[in-house]
Parts: sequence; C-alpha cells; structure tokens
Amino acid sequence: MARNPQLNKHGELQHLLTTEGLPRDVITRILDTAEPFADVAEREVKKVPLLRGKSVFNLFFENSTRTRTTFEIAAKRLSADVINLNIATSSTNKGETLLDTVDNLAAMQADMFVVRHASSGAPYLIAQHLEATGRDHIHVVNAGDGRHAHPTQGLLDMYTIRHYKRDFTQLSVAVVGDILHSRVARSQIHALSTLGVPDLRAVAPKTLLPQDIERLGCRVFHDMREGLRGVDVVMMLRLQNERMQGSLLPSAQEYFKFFGLTEEKLALAKPDAIVLHPGPMNRGVEIDSAVADGRQAVILPQVTFGIAVRMAVMAMLGGGNA
Amino acid sequence: MARNPQLNKHGELQHLLTTEGLPRDVITRILDTAEPFADVAEREVKKVPLLRGKSVFNLFFENSTRTRTTFEIAAKRLSADVINLNIATSSTNKGETLLDTVDNLAAMQADMFVVRHASSGAPYLIAQHLEATGRDHIHVVNAGDGRHAHPTQGLLDMYTIRHYKRDFTQLSVAVVGDILHSRVARSQIHALSTLGVPDLRAVAPKTLLPQDIERLGCRVFHDMREGLRGVDVVMMLRLQNERMQGSLLPSAQEYFKFFGLTEEKLALAKPDAIVLHPGPMNRGVEIDSAVADGRQAVILPQVTFGIAVRMAVMAMLGGGNA
Amino acid sequence: MARNPQLNKHGELQHLLTTEGLPRDVITRILDTAEPFADVAEREVKKVPLLRGKSVFNLFFENSTRTRTTFEIAAKRLSADVINLNIATSSTNKGETLLDTVDNLAAMQADMFVVRHASSGAPYLIAQHLEATGRDHIHVVNAGDGRHAHPTQGLLDMYTIRHYKRDFTQLSVAVVGDILHSRVARSQIHALSTLGVPDLRAVAPKTLLPQDIERLGCRVFHDMREGLRGVDVVMMLRLQNERMQGSLLPSAQEYFKFFGLTEEKLALAKPDAIVLHPGPMNRGVEIDSAVADGRQAVILPQVTFGIAVRMAVMAMLGGGNA
Repeated sequence: MARNPQLNKHGELQHLLTTEGLPRDVITRILDTAEPFADVAEREVKKVPLLRGKSVFNLFFENSTRTRTTFEIAAKRLSADVINLNIATSSTNKGETLLDTVDNLAAMQADMFVVRHASSGAPYLIAQHLEATGRDHIHVVNAGDGRHAHPTQGLLDMYTIRHYKRDFTQLSVAVVGDILHSRVARSQIHALSTLGVPDLRAVAPKTLLPQDIERLGCRVFHDMREGLRGVDVVMMLRLQNERMQGSLLPSAQEYFKFFGLTEEKLALAKPDAIVLHPGPMNRGVEIDSAVADGRQAVILPQVTFGIAVRMAVMAMLGGGNA
Repeated sequence: MARNPQLNKHGELQHLLTTEGLPRDVITRILDTAEPFADVAEREVKKVPLLRGKSVFNLFFENSTRTRTTFEIAAKRLSADVINLNIATSSTNKGETLLDTVDNLAAMQADMFVVRHASSGAPYLIAQHLEATGRDHIHVVNAGDGRHAHPTQGLLDMYTIRHYKRDFTQLSVAVVGDILHSRVARSQIHALSTLGVPDLRAVAPKTLLPQDIERLGCRVFHDMREGLRGVDVVMMLRLQNERMQGSLLPSAQEYFKFFGLTEEKLALAKPDAIVLHPGPMNRGVEIDSAVADGRQAVILPQVTFGIAVRMAVMAMLGGGNA
Repeated sequence: MARNPQLNKHGELQHLLTTEGLPRDVITRILDTAEPFADVAEREVKKVPLLRGKSVFNLFFENSTRTRTTFEIAAKRLSADVINLNIATSSTNKGETLLDTVDNLAAMQADMFVVRHASSGAPYLIAQHLEATGRDHIHVVNAGDGRHAHPTQGLLDMYTIRHYKRDFTQLSVAVVGDILHSRVARSQIHALSTLGVPDLRAVAPKTLLPQDIERLGCRVFHDMREGLRGVDVVMMLRLQNERMQGSLLPSAQEYFKFFGLTEEKLALAKPDAIVLHPGPMNRGVEIDSAVADGRQAVILPQVTFGIAVRMAVMAMLGGGNA
C-alpha cells in the first residue's frame, strides 16, 4: 500500500482512515453526498435501502457509546445489518491477535468494519491486512485511533463549516485547546488545510501543542484573545479529564481562565463567528455554558450533520464502490 | 408545563411519565389500542410497520435487562430502529450532564426516548427540556424512575385485570408488600383509582408503607389475611433483595411467614381471584411456588400483555400524534 | 421426553441440543440446507425473509462475543428480530431461577432461544420445560453448555469436512488436544461417528482424555506423530488458558512441543490433509502460525460455513417446523 491506501485504483474511496492526504475532490464528494442524507433525517421515514443486506461491524476495542451510536444509527438508516462488538471485554482477552479477530469477522462475510482502537494505526493495519489478503470488498472506517485520527469527526466539522460559511478559501479558523492529545484536532487541521483555509490557527498552551504544529500549516497562538481575534470559526476541543490531574495543566479552573471560551473572549471573533465542539462538553472547563447554549454555537447541528456524513461515507464505501 | 405534561393541547398522549393524573379515557384508549397488538403476537409474522424508519432510543441510566428487553421487542415489532444505550457505564462518566446527553441524542434525530433512571423525575425533566426547546416531536416514555413511577408496568397490570375481570368499578383489589419503595405500586394505585376501583387495599408491614398511603385512596391492612379477605385481585410486589438485609425487615423467612402469598392465605380471597406479580419473583419470600405456578396466577400473561401495552403506547406516541 | 428430545413426532428437528444421537439423515439434511445459505453470503444482498417477524433470543449465561455474533448474523440474515441478553450480569442476579427467566421470555412470544450456559444440560432443561408446559412452538439451540456439547460447531465442522473431502466413509480423522474439557470435541466425535468415519482417532496426553473415550469409538494416541500418520483430517482443539496454569499440564511450551501442530508433524498426515480449529487460536500453543496460515488450514472457511450452518438450523427450526 505505497499509494494512498484510502483510495482504490480509480481514485474512489476504498477506506476512510484519516483526513491526511485525502484529496480535496474526495472530501467535497463526501460532503455533497451527505446533503440529501441530512434531508433524509427530516423525512417521516428516515430509512433508505442503500446498504440493505450488508453487514456492518462496529469493532470497538475502546469504549465509546456516543461514537458507536452515531455509526449504528447511520448504518441502520441505510438499512444495513449492524453488529456491535465491544472487544474491550471479549475474545482478544482469550489471547487472539487483532488480525485473527479481523480474519474471523471477515470470514463471517462482513462488508464493513467501523473501528475504534486505542492504538494509532490499528484501522490502517486492518485495511492493509485486508488488501494484502485479497479481500478488498471489505471497507474500513476509522472511528478514532489513539491520538492519530478521527476522520468522520473532521469531516462532519467540514460539513458544518461549509453549511454556515460556504467558502473555505475566505476563512479564518481557530482550533483551540488540547491539540497535543487530540485526534480530532489532527483530522480537522488536515481537512481545513486541504480545503484551502488561508488562515488556520492553533490556540493552546505550550504544553498542549504538538511539536510539528507549524509544519501542519497552523499559526500558533498561546494567548487565546490574540488567537480568536477576527476569526470566522472557533473549533473548541474537549479537555480530557485525565489531563486535568496531570502535570501538563495547573487546574481546570486555571485552564478555564486562560483557554475556556467565554462570551467575552468570543466577542473578539467576527460577530457572525460560529463555535464548534466535538462533545461531550466539559462546561466550565473548556467552554462556558453561556457560549455552549448561545446563538453562535453550532454544536447540536454538528451532531445532526455527523449522522449524514457517516451515512455518506458508508454509502460511498458499501454501496458498490468495491 | 403547568398543564399535564403528558398530554398535548388536543388532550392526546405526548409523553408517558406516570399514571398519576392520566385521564381515564387516555388509559382506556391505551388499553384498547393494545388489544390488536396482543393478537399481533400470535400471528405468524409479528411485525407491523407503524414505526418504520423511526429511531427509538432505550436510555438506561440504570441496568434492567428485563424491562429494556420488553421495550426493545415492542419497538422492533413496530418496525422501529432501536438503539440501546447503557448510560450507567458511558458518557455521563465523562462529565456530561443529563440534558447534554439528551440534546445530543435528540440531534441524532431521535423520535422517542425510553428512559430508566435511578432518580425520581428524570424522565419528566427530559420531557420538560424537550418542550422548552421546541422539540415536541420527540416523545418520552418512563421505564421506571427512582421510587416514583413505572407507568407501563401499571398499565399492563390494568390490561391484565380488565382482561380477566372486565369491570373495574366492581372490584376489590389488594396491593401487597413493599409499597414504600415500589414505583410499581404507586403506578398501580393511581391507575386503579382513576379507573374507579371502589375497594383498594394496601397490605404491608408498617415499615414498608408510605405516609400518604391513605390519601391515595387505599385502606391499610397490616394483617395480610384481613387484607386479602374477599378480594378479586391480589397484586404482589417484589421484595427488593437489598431490603432484606436492612433494618426494615427482620428476615426473609419472617417476611414470608407474615406477608408471603401462600395457598392458605390466598384461599381467603374470592375463589376466582387472580394473582399478579411484576417479576422477577423471589419464590419463598413474597410468593410461594404453589401460588406462583398455580391456576390463579396470571403472571406470565402479564408479561405477554406487557409487550402489547408497550407497543400501544409507542404506536400512539410515535405513530403520528406529534 | 423419553424419546429423542431433539426431534418432533414426525422425526423433524425440534431443538438442536447435541450431536449425540442425532440421526444421520437429520445431520445430512442440515448440511444440505446450509448449502444455498453459503451462497446467500456471496450475493449482493445477503438477506432472506425466512424468519421475518420471528423473535430470536440470544440467551448468554456465559460470555462469548464470538459465538453470539455468529448466531446474531445468521438470524439477521434470515430477517429475524434478534434480542441479545447477557444474563451473566442480569436478572438471575436478582434471584430469579433459570426457568422463571425462560418463562418470562417465552411469554414475550419468543420463537427461538439460542442458549449458552456454563452448566452442562441447561439447554436440555429449557427444552424439556418448554415441552412439559405445552410450548413446543419455541425452539432451543444449544450454543455451548458446560463440557457437554456445542452442536453447531460440530455440524459446521462436518460441513467443512464434507466440502473438502466429500465421503465420510473413506476418512481417517484425528481429534487433537484437550478432549477432556472440550464440548467441541464431544460434538465432533458423535457427528463423525454417526456419519460413518471408519478411522476416528483421539490424540491427547493422558491427563486430557475422558475415561469413556474408547466407548465413543475412538482409537487413542498419546503420541501425536503416531496419531497424525496418514489422516485426511486434523481437528485441532483450543487449549483453554485456564488449563495452562493447572496441574494437568507442565507448561504451554511443553504442550506445544508434544501436541502443538507444526508443519513437521503435519507432514505425517496425508499430503492433502486439511486442518480445522474452532477458534480462537492460541498460536504457538496448540498450533504453529505456519500451519494456521498455511495452505492446508481451512479455519476461516469453517467460520464462513458456520454462518450458513447456523442459518440452516434456525431456518429448519423456525421456518414452520413447529
């Protein structure tokens, strides 16, 4: 898989592993495909038969009720059969290797694996193994791997931004918070960059920034007020609870003071700036309730669009692309 | 929501939160609607397409395999897409508030929430929040909240009684056992009272009776033999295991001696009296096996009717009432 | 149930509890019925409507994600409604008896119970109870009970052998490993014997052989090289992790040396011998990776055929046999 492992030889989506290196036209096609699915959700009957008879396996090696739920709903609305596997507590305990587990499920005639794993690269490893063994009719969707990527989250954020702001090439966008540990941030930054955002900002304390952040095309701001000045889009990140006790941060209160999004700080952005958050929110830590529930927040539309984007990805992969 | 929050402005069922204050004609309509669903269960193909394409979320903040199963079956037989969420072990752990969880799931285009929660009033809070935020197309069914209410259990008991006894206004009914801690008892008593049962009895030791029991229209009996004399219906309650070690009860053996339903005690009721129990039973604690498996027990029919009643409630809520 | 409890009075499959005593023509009919389902799995739409509207309950009193998944997929591909119940952590904790649990689920109009239980005989007990109480429209499939039986595994192994070797009456078959504790081995040996395998071998250390092994028609080999000489089929068993610490075995390394299947040992079998394993594999304990991934292994086809065989069993039981 020296070539882009996510695309087949016709340049079509084969797996969705990361937004890094995903061509602009493929991203755009995903967002375009999602549009009618956003409508489906409003119809009386929300089901379409695109994946009827297909078997989608939610392979969650790491618990995530929320993400698993969004994929489960998306697959069911496409009429797929969905099998949930919480492998955190199952056969890998019995000493079976990851690839033996995958081989077994593939042998049950899986059509798609939605994979969540604590190790960066696990979905890539699975995709590579499937191709190496000639089973390229099975598609892999990364639902979050380690600190690496969470591409459907990145794409639903792009959908949301396009919905409210239309033209990426005119935007100032700030990604704010614990960028160092965030697979969401990485997926956002790659996608924003590919879509041509000219002013892309990383706003975080020094201890929560990855070393290569400037290579990714971001301007760095350690002062949140500076970072938000004049932006069109504020993309807040969740502060993981486990960081709050660590040595990287003084305290949740201190964090909120400097990097929590308040109405006062948000006022420095453009008046029509929108605020995104991947959820679940820590109110009073990275975001103030007045903002979370305010008129500029598009956090719940993100969730709605997220179903549509996941339907789009699954439909493109499973609906005859193989 | 100063008005009855369970009814919309046309007096139709909007949510099912409690049997308290539920008008007699609404209860009767639910029971009538359940009749054909009881037949559906006997047909070769048990599915009807009433909720096709609708998304029903089983939101269980408290574990209950049995109750969750009955709602899952009911929803699937109505052709809904069912998503099970065991939130005991999930995102609320991540510091998300109850209402943020609800907002998120609502944003996934939920049509119905079936809610089980250890705190009394949680389903009401959710319903109130949905209405306050203009999302009255989403319906809430209380599947048991704290010590407050378990309305579908109360309604299936009404269905069962009506099935065997027809006219509520001629009946003597005894509710027996740990009434103090029982949401089931509360839901039964409100429904029986609304349906016009003229002789409603609460049979329990003093330590297991709520203070306001007489205000609910019950005559109190501390002697079970007295309490059962001449009744048409005996509604046994489950004795929670955790009570048995507490200071409220001497021992399970002692309890059985005074408040366990034996054939000898049951003989004091009318010869054609029926015996109900919400399950799971503690044989030899609140009920003797000879009674549980005897000709007067209608405990398994309760379960069957329970599916039909839940189908009726969900169909009335989700089938175009909004 | 003095007669064979698995067959109804017309000699048709009523329950699937064990391969012991299952007549040859019934086994053959199951394998024949599975053939087109193996094709279904390759079609674009893998669903058939044979169990539409039927309710299949996966009753797992013992965790097994893998086995539960195979039954769930099989049932969904037959268009059944599937309800998963992990009873390890549920209402039996509340003091309810096994048969009360069964009665309750039966009252929810179950059509089929797929039962996994740590106690040998539990599925038989359930089947007996259903018949004794006149509910013979409900079918029981044993998905593994204690050390007793795992009949669908045995049958899928028969399907696999027939697929590659055609005529059972010409075969030498070796079952290798921890036969003493293996319900899989028991189900294989009964089926192989019924299907007329003339040379059936049990290959195991003395401490891992049941006393009655010769009565089952097996020739015993304590030397694996002897046992494999000239066989057509090698059926490896999983070595349970818990055995490895026990007193029955010196160590996993020692076990591998004497009873692990290596290419060198496999070379003693016929050149076209096939290797089966029920999974999950302990690579480097009972089987070497070179064999597991080698050209003679049919371990992944077993998995694929397993879905087809389970579909066949469920279709025969639930599709109008009652």
